[in-house]
Amino acid sequence: MCKFRDHCGIFGISGCPDAAVKTYMGLYALQHRGQESAGIVVSDGENLNEKKGLGLVSQVFGSPDQLVELEGDAAIGHVRYSTTGSTTFANCQPFMINYKRGQIAGSHNGNLINAAGLRSEMESEGSIFRTTTDTEVILHLLAKSPKHTTPESVADALSKVEGAFSILFLTPEYLIAARGPRGVRPLVMTEVDGRVAFASETCAFDLLDLPRGRSLEPGEVVIVDRKGSIESFFPFPKVKSAACIFEFIYFSRPDSRIFDTNVDKIRRRMGHRLAIEQPADADIVISVPDSSNTAALGFSRESGIPFELGLIRNHYIGRTFIQPRQAIRDFGSRIKYNPVRGVLYNKRVVVVDDSIVRGTTSKALNSIIRQAGAKEIHLRVASPPIKHPCYYGIDTPTYDQLVASYSSVEETARYIGADSLGYLSLEGMLAIDELPKIGFCDACFSGNYPIPRVDEASKEKMNSC
Amino acid sequence: MCKFRDHCGIFGISGCPDAAVKTYMGLYALQHRGQESAGIVVSDGENLNEKKGLGLVSQVFGSPDQLVELEGDAAIGHVRYSTTGSTTFANCQPFMINYKRGQIAGSHNGNLINAAGLRSEMESEGSIFRTTTDTEVILHLLAKSPKHTTPESVADALSKVEGAFSILFLTPEYLIAARGPRGVRPLVMTEVDGRVAFASETCAFDLLDLPRGRSLEPGEVVIVDRKGSIESFFPFPKVKSAACIFEFIYFSRPDSRIFDTNVDKIRRRMGHRLAIEQPADADIVISVPDSSNTAALGFSRESGIPFELGLIRNHYIGRTFIQPRQAIRDFGSRIKYNPVRGVLYNKRVVVVDDSIVRGTTSKALNSIIRQAGAKEIHLRVASPPIKHPCYYGIDTPTYDQLVASYSSVEETARYIGADSLGYLSLEGMLAIDELPKIGFCDACFSGNYPIPRVDEASKEKMNSC
Amino acid sequence: MCKFRDHCGIFGISGCPDAAVKTYMGLYALQHRGQESAGIVVSDGENLNEKKGLGLVSQVFGSPDQLVELEGDAAIGHVRYSTTGSTTFANCQPFMINYKRGQIAGSHNGNLINAAGLRSEMESEGSIFRTTTDTEVILHLLAKSPKHTTPESVADALSKVEGAFSILFLTPEYLIAARGPRGVRPLVMTEVDGRVAFASETCAFDLLDLPRGRSLEPGEVVIVDRKGSIESFFPFPKVKSAACIFEFIYFSRPDSRIFDTNVDKIRRRMGHRLAIEQPADADIVISVPDSSNTAALGFSRESGIPFELGLIRNHYIGRTFIQPRQAIRDFGSRIKYNPVRGVLYNKRVVVVDDSIVRGTTSKALNSIIRQAGAKEIHLRVASPPIKHPCYYGIDTPTYDQLVASYSSVEETARYIGADSLGYLSLEGMLAIDELPKIGFCDACFSGNYPIPRVDEASKEKMNSC
Amino acid sequence: MCKFRDHCGIFGISGCPDAAVKTYMGLYALQHRGQESAGIVVSDGENLNEKKGLGLVSQVFGSPDQLVELEGDAAIGHVRYSTTGSTTFANCQPFMINYKRGQIAGSHNGNLINAAGLRSEMESEGSIFRTTTDTEVILHLLAKSPKHTTPESVADALSKVEGAFSILFLTPEYLIAARGPRGVRPLVMTEVDGRVAFASETCAFDLLDLPRGRSLEPGEVVIVDRKGSIESFFPFPKVKSAACIFEFIYFSRPDSRIFDTNVDKIRRRMGHRLAIEQPADADIVISVPDSSNTAALGFSRESGIPFELGLIRNHYIGRTFIQPRQAIRDFGSRIKYNPVRGVLYNKRVVVVDDSIVRGTTSKALNSIIRQAGAKEIHLRVASPPIKHPCYYGIDTPTYDQLVASYSSVEETARYIGADSLGYLSLEGMLAIDELPKIGFCDACFSGNYPIPRVDEASKEKMNSC
Repeated sequence: MCKFRDHCGIFGISGCPDAAVKTYMGLYALQHRGQESAGIVVSDGENLNEKKGLGLVSQVFGSPDQLVELEGDAAIGHVRYSTTGSTTFANCQPFMINYKRGQIAGSHNGNLINAAGLRSEMESEGSIFRTTTDTEVILHLLAKSPKHTTPESVADALSKVEGAFSILFLTPEYLIAARGPRGVRPLVMTEVDGRVAFASETCAFDLLDLPRGRSLEPGEVVIVDRKGSIESFFPFPKVKSAACIFEFIYFSRPDSRIFDTNVDKIRRRMGHRLAIEQPADADIVISVPDSSNTAALGFSRESGIPFELGLIRNHYIGRTFIQPRQAIRDFGSRIKYNPVRGVLYNKRVVVVDDSIVRGTTSKALNSIIRQAGAKEIHLRVASPPIKHPCYYGIDTPTYDQLVASYSSVEETARYIGADSLGYLSLEGMLAIDELPKIGFCDACFSGNYPIPRVDEASKEKMNSC
Repeated sequence: MCKFRDHCGIFGISGCPDAAVKTYMGLYALQHRGQESAGIVVSDGENLNEKKGLGLVSQVFGSPDQLVELEGDAAIGHVRYSTTGSTTFANCQPFMINYKRGQIAGSHNGNLINAAGLRSEMESEGSIFRTTTDTEVILHLLAKSPKHTTPESVADALSKVEGAFSILFLTPEYLIAARGPRGVRPLVMTEVDGRVAFASETCAFDLLDLPRGRSLEPGEVVIVDRKGSIESFFPFPKVKSAACIFEFIYFSRPDSRIFDTNVDKIRRRMGHRLAIEQPADADIVISVPDSSNTAALGFSRESGIPFELGLIRNHYIGRTFIQPRQAIRDFGSRIKYNPVRGVLYNKRVVVVDDSIVRGTTSKALNSIIRQAGAKEIHLRVASPPIKHPCYYGIDTPTYDQLVASYSSVEETARYIGADSLGYLSLEGMLAIDELPKIGFCDACFSGNYPIPRVDEASKEKMNSC
Repeated sequence: MCKFRDHCGIFGISGCPDAAVKTYMGLYALQHRGQESAGIVVSDGENLNEKKGLGLVSQVFGSPDQLVELEGDAAIGHVRYSTTGSTTFANCQPFMINYKRGQIAGSHNGNLINAAGLRSEMESEGSIFRTTTDTEVILHLLAKSPKHTTPESVADALSKVEGAFSILFLTPEYLIAARGPRGVRPLVMTEVDGRVAFASETCAFDLLDLPRGRSLEPGEVVIVDRKGSIESFFPFPKVKSAACIFEFIYFSRPDSRIFDTNVDKIRRRMGHRLAIEQPADADIVISVPDSSNTAALGFSRESGIPFELGLIRNHYIGRTFIQPRQAIRDFGSRIKYNPVRGVLYNKRVVVVDDSIVRGTTSKALNSIIRQAGAKEIHLRVASPPIKHPCYYGIDTPTYDQLVASYSSVEETARYIGADSLGYLSLEGMLAIDELPKIGFCDACFSGNYPIPRVDEASKEKMNSC
Repeated sequence: MCKFRDHCGIFGISGCPDAAVKTYMGLYALQHRGQESAGIVVSDGENLNEKKGLGLVSQVFGSPDQLVELEGDAAIGHVRYSTTGSTTFANCQPFMINYKRGQIAGSHNGNLINAAGLRSEMESEGSIFRTTTDTEVILHLLAKSPKHTTPESVADALSKVEGAFSILFLTPEYLIAARGPRGVRPLVMTEVDGRVAFASETCAFDLLDLPRGRSLEPGEVVIVDRKGSIESFFPFPKVKSAACIFEFIYFSRPDSRIFDTNVDKIRRRMGHRLAIEQPADADIVISVPDSSNTAALGFSRESGIPFELGLIRNHYIGRTFIQPRQAIRDFGSRIKYNPVRGVLYNKRVVVVDDSIVRGTTSKALNSIIRQAGAKEIHLRVASPPIKHPCYYGIDTPTYDQLVASYSSVEETARYIGADSLGYLSLEGMLAIDELPKIGFCDACFSGNYPIPRVDEASKEKMNSC
């Protein structure tokens, strides 16, 4: 793993005759949030139908015109990363079940820290589980709720979970969206001409030519019925907001707007501050494409050191090599990035990266850059050192694999082969004016986990999303 | 549907290093019992792993040597027919879950007549269902059982269901087989050198060079642990046996031994009695291959009318045409059977068929036979007229589609284009000496349902197997 | 290899709006003649289009309704066996090319004994070859012909080849059929309402509800143009006919009519004569299904020993196990045939087989039959001992693998584990009254090769079909 | 078509135990040159073996470890674009044949302008053609050559063709590379430790950690035998060099070195000159990613207008949507590019593109950019107006589809919705100091075709590569 990986992207739409096609396009725009499985559940007002599988959206569904069997005017969808070993068909989402009120399906992005505990408890009371997903735990809670309506049951079920979640539910009657009270994961909503759509990021709305709408508030639950009437309520006790700052650093697409703020603007500011905090005496600034482009531009503008294209990324990777994992390792980062020798030769180079997890990719990249003739390499990281694992839906390694948790900056620089290494400071990052005035979770940097870790085992036993 | 269709074949084995390969071969031998999905769950003593999918055994698993990922020394498997519309991946078996005692998987053949009722009840108490299978209902019961061991829980769960079932369970620790107290569906067991195997029919043992063993008794539950110790017990109240006579008529392979009786012998006797009860003045006897071959030989021997091969069956059908259902209908029975003109031309022909369901296939066949020059067609059916649907695991049409339920024999003969039509009588069939001395279910002929129909709706809502 | 294997089946039709669908069905009926590749070329009057691939007809083309892209009113098709190692996509037929008169495609069944020589000669003159098929050699000859029309060029090209061939050509303008002057391989033709069709066997016409038509004469070439006008001519010098007797013994379906004679009638007579020539004192007669059924019935009728179903064939084999060759060998004939113990137990059994090639299958079958309790096994073979390889389009092993070429009948009986073994005599077979009065090739039995072997090497270097 | 499309990338290597894996990686690096088919032919010193198919390298071959069947120490490979309608399996390369000296395979990049003429001539002499590729024409010439060795025959054959070609041949004995005397298409060569490799661009060598080597000279033929001895010769009459300038503008990867010159340097200079020739009063410069990034950076540097990331490209497109062409059209450029609103809003924007073909993509992009809030759009194109089609291996539309051939710059600006439009001048482009001192073909801009068009029809009838 060279980057933190978000687990999932979710999308839902109602009031739209070709809801499955729209959801396909929405998932396609969110593909960067999860490339290992994809699924759609559609409602025609009477029944739900599902299609899901392992692979990219286009691999699971073919082209949009092959979605004919998924007729209906409301749908939810899901794309998913998964930790090694748990990429099973059973865990693909949305997860669809029958319960006392009929059919319901759920698409979840996040991680419940009390999921394993809830699950053991329910198992001891006689429940059975088909998957290792949080979504199934939530659907169990929902089915067990004594409340008398679907919306109330949803609220009741969600009030029992603790952690990070943005979740969509679909029943023949309702499309329901909920963002956890901590607001860790993003969830946006838009509405036009009787259509209502929800997505992890606004880039999904852009592709569908929908307005960008707004972020759901932390703790907000929105219910849309088949007539298009929308109801919003806040069933959970108010808690401190803890939006995931990593969405700005790496997960979200720069063209998206999340937490009611444009991603690219924040990413740009991180580059600016990085240049101020960690200047370098160099000839050129290059980025590790594409995720660091915006921050690198920001660094270049602030420092006055010219921005250059020093690495070319082969975009055929990432999908073509998903299966043959061994092959990719043999060729290392080489197959993903090729240096532009004419740019790098005999230059003192600032390399801007968005984050460092294990340090192994940085080490490989630095070696490639140096082989191409760079005289000096000054690695600048547009986020603070990652010292702590995440428990809220991000796939992170353990402490002993996080290079910043066991090495000083100098040691890390030596390990990865950089002449100098500088991180953006946590204070500096949080002081960026343009950041929305909400509380952020910075636990991976600070160790200050906003949510008490009720259930130590959840991370190991369950698959977050 | 031209025949009644059994829903499933099941196989299980323990104490065998390549349990998955053995299960593959066992399912392959049972492929005639279900061609729409196949699945295997294997135990390595610590964990269960599953692989299943839509299609034939060979399509789902490839060749036996592709089963390497399914390592373990105990396994259960399943092949399945399904009613149109419910051929979904979710319903493929074995069905594997987690519950309070860990993992368990189930493979089921039969139909529970109180499944829908149990399910509604459990739903109203907050349970969720992923499939529409009986197996999931049973696993819910098992998980909810207050008993303290797996074997006790199994017995407890099964004591709550009513209907026809032969079922295998696999946990990391146990292989468990149970045949319902009515003994409707067959289940055989064999044991040699520490290996214990179970199967719907003995033909699966033959292929594996295992002894033919014995039939489980109605109501018998057999538990095999990892050390190979076998325990048999009878946890259910004794009720009248109601073995499905149709297993002898059509479902089982003639080379199998079920209900401790060779199938081909019974099928032969049916042909004999048919010749006595319904003689015909004719030149030749032909069968509708392959299922009627044995009965036709019996008819020929008794009547003295020579047996001939008048229809050639294209064995590429049935798999190749599973999907393009429309195409097959356009070509009708023509694509499945070709007449041998030299045999049929200018002949008075006795056609022996094992059973008639809707009459449409008979009508098409008779037309083919007549086109080939047959002078007279005397259709003889080696079982009584089917007048009632089955509720115990067989896919049957409703009353208005069973030709014998709304037409007299004469009307039917006219409809299907036969010069004469004769069925084996119910009394005659049951009087066959070689039939084992157990009670049989003949409800599809007589309407005498041995199990009170607790739950009228089960057939519609649930998928039997 | 347990049987001789014919290499190919061919089908063609013109004057028919959905020619590709008709050809699909025709190939489907001929699937027994070749299961390793399938192809169709269609003409819309202006262009040819092709689709071909490895596998069964249904695997290559899906269902008939997926043939939409193959629009046109004339088509030819091909199914093919191939010797191990040469199952390549390049060798799939029909083979379609461009030459001076535009596009042409060819589908061939047979083997040219001077193909390798012609090919070397053409190569030395600068020709290039994409495949190792006879068809490509013939198309080269055709393209090089100085004649001025397609029909004349076809005749000119074919006059240069020596061996066995039945071949179809398709151009945008013509459908052309040719049967070699020896008449080794069958080719039938039918015509109705402006449609003209050709096929290896009449079973293809039956499926399409076309009349059975007639056999092309040896040396006959038939040209059909787009207006439906048919011209027949005999461009080759008259030579002695040498129809392949093995078509009656094994290759053709019993419901087919080839060489203007019903196959099942000849096969039946072979059983009769076998019973007379090689009587046995036994309780029952069984066949090795399905290919020996007719001969076994004939044996039973003549001998008075009752015919029984002693072996059940698993029809899922043959396709499912084409790839995993090793797996099938491990399970041997066991996976293909299962004995019916109730029939065989304690019986003296006559087993009728159509032919013996290597003897290994017979050995395995006898072991299975004996394990099932047979007291005595008397193997009766409805054709003479195969002592010589075929050079005219049949896949045969070399002398040292033909059991009858190096063992006496007694030795063979011992080797295969039969209590007695008897073959039909060559004289007896040829004396069957019902055989058409044409010359037959019996070289595999007698060593009398009707065609001088111009080119010893052809068999090794080229792939017959 | 929104861009000119090169037809092919070629790669070859010898003296390397896992030649097929190396070729896989080389093709992977050249994937941008052709995404519709891929193929590899390998030599083990005695035989050639091939694998090819439609799709990406990773789709055709799976992962590198699935190449086991392609054993050998020399190999050539090919990736290909093709014009609509001719994406057939038959046309996939390398094309492998047998001829008098055994097996030979060819991989070709370019277009022969006398191919159709040569082909008709050979057809009239009796040759047959399986494909519509130039490669087959060349192999015919080679087979017909009276020369006595493979190298001489290659030279003889190539001396008969006219046009643009870079081609690799593989025989069991030799790996042969030839670059046409005009030097239109690039071809580079490297050598280290007995391995010799050839590729369209050096990025293939980079991925394999091979030195970047050198460009073959125009007219150079290099023969490598199995012992690794290399012979270079110049068999063709010397003509004026006509290297394709579009390789610098768009086709080659910026990290490649072709014509012994770094691509990114030239592309950068084009941006510089564009800024000088066509200045704009604007707030930001954005590129159309990724192909215009380098030129846009150059424009920004020269003009002093800051470079920004205004468009995000979805890299999942291009492969996932290859088949469902209709779907992609419905969503237009929207699915490929998403605007970054925060960057574009209320700005005067210079959009730098590398070239304009039909203008339809520019029109769509401008609309997207304007919708995102841009105040003014000044489109600057880093190459001259394309007014003439290409006949040397590039897929170009006809005159009536080239917007610059029928519209003035002002008309074009209006059509595509730009406030101003400026192209780099032809003189300006050719005056770039860093361009290698070789002759270039600029026919698509100037209409000065360096090779007389012998054969008007070639482009229509044949498929270049």
